[in-house]
Amino acid sequence: MPTIRVEMFEGRTIEQKREMAEVFTREMARIAKIAPDAIQVLFDEYRRDNWAVGGTLYADKTK
Amino acid sequence: MPTIRVEMFEGRTIEQKREMAEVFTREMARIAKIAPDAIQVLFDEYRRDNWAVGGTLYADKTK
Amino acid sequence: MPTIRVEMFEGRTIEQKREMAEVFTREMARIAKIAPDAIQVLFDEYRRDNWAVGGTLYADKTK
Amino acid sequence: MPTIRVEMFEGRTIEQKREMAEVFTREMARIAKIAPDAIQVLFDEYRRDNWAVGGTLYADKTK
Amino acid sequence: MPTIRVEMFEGRTIEQKREMAEVFTREMARIAKIAPDAIQVLFDEYRRDNWAVGGTLYADKTK
Amino acid sequence: MPTIRVEMFEGRTIEQKREMAEVFTREMARIAKIAPDAIQVLFDEYRRDNWAVGGTLYADKTK
Repeated sequence: MPTIRVEMFEGRTIEQKREMAEVFTREMARIAKIAPDAIQVLFDEYRRDNWAVGGTLYADKTK
Repeated sequence: MPTIRVEMFEGRTIEQKREMAEVFTREMARIAKIAPDAIQVLFDEYRRDNWAVGGTLYADKTK
Repeated sequence: MPTIRVEMFEGRTIEQKREMAEVFTREMARIAKIAPDAIQVLFDEYRRDNWAVGGTLYADKTK
Repeated sequence: MPTIRVEMFEGRTIEQKREMAEVFTREMARIAKIAPDAIQVLFDEYRRDNWAVGGTLYADKTK
Repeated sequence: MPTIRVEMFEGRTIEQKREMAEVFTREMARIAKIAPDAIQVLFDEYRRDNWAVGGTLYADKTK
Repeated sequence: MPTIRVEMFEGRTIEQKREMAEVFTREMARIAKIAPDAIQVLFDEYRRDNWAVGGTLYADKTK
């Protein structure tokens, strides 16, 4: 079962997740020629103290 | 250290996790000929608004 | 950096990967209001003897 | 779709993968009360120069 | 964007995460000759009832 | 067993992996106060046609 995982900050609304799940599934089905029902989407949400870029936590960047 | 990751909905009891950890470790040790102490099991639990199949979030399916 | 991971069988063409990367990035940018340049897409490709559903390897299903 | 991922060294036979897929699926279905057809198993295989414990690559340990 | 993921028990302080993010980024940049700004670090924190070694959950080991 | 996963392009030498495994383990042991023998490091290597940023595969960027 092809799987699309989305890693992002927490805080997106259920409406945004709903639309991403719908669009990513439809587009992957179209491009890779897979039945939409065979595709799953998972969201992995991160807090800003668990993600760093350039050696700095986002929790510190936004101070 | 061979690792078994289990991705599932949140809501399973500690008894179910305990039994899965025990059984998966014992069976992998037997089949792959690895010492049980060298095997780890991790559980990744997902909310129903973070998992979709067929383009629909489980949170919406269960409405 | 928001990341979209796609787990699928090996065998998709570079044209299919190119289009998925482009479309997923554009759509995530639009829905989650993120700059496209801040989004990455990774493809994890699996062989049919490394993926099972219902307890049966795909390598065995396709026999 | 509950997913069991197995991270291990490359080199296991298809017979070992087949048996792990079968047993893990059957046992997870029994313990977590899930239909077996809804469970998938993925194998992620690693080379010995891509895995270290205690700061030493396995490729170096086996010298 | 090279990514370093750290899987560990929950409970580390933000000071520890900050130092790991800083040191891992600096060292990977030095060793792999990558610009530090192109490196990200993510922390995946696990509860003790979601991690087992040798078939026993850590939640049970610490009883 | 705390785990550090490094996702990067393929092509790094075993000397670079060896040094990253050694340094990351030593530094995580020091910062998080964990025995070095309890830490593992895994490298996940990606081809340039399996990684995109900004909607463009690296395989296409380097043309």
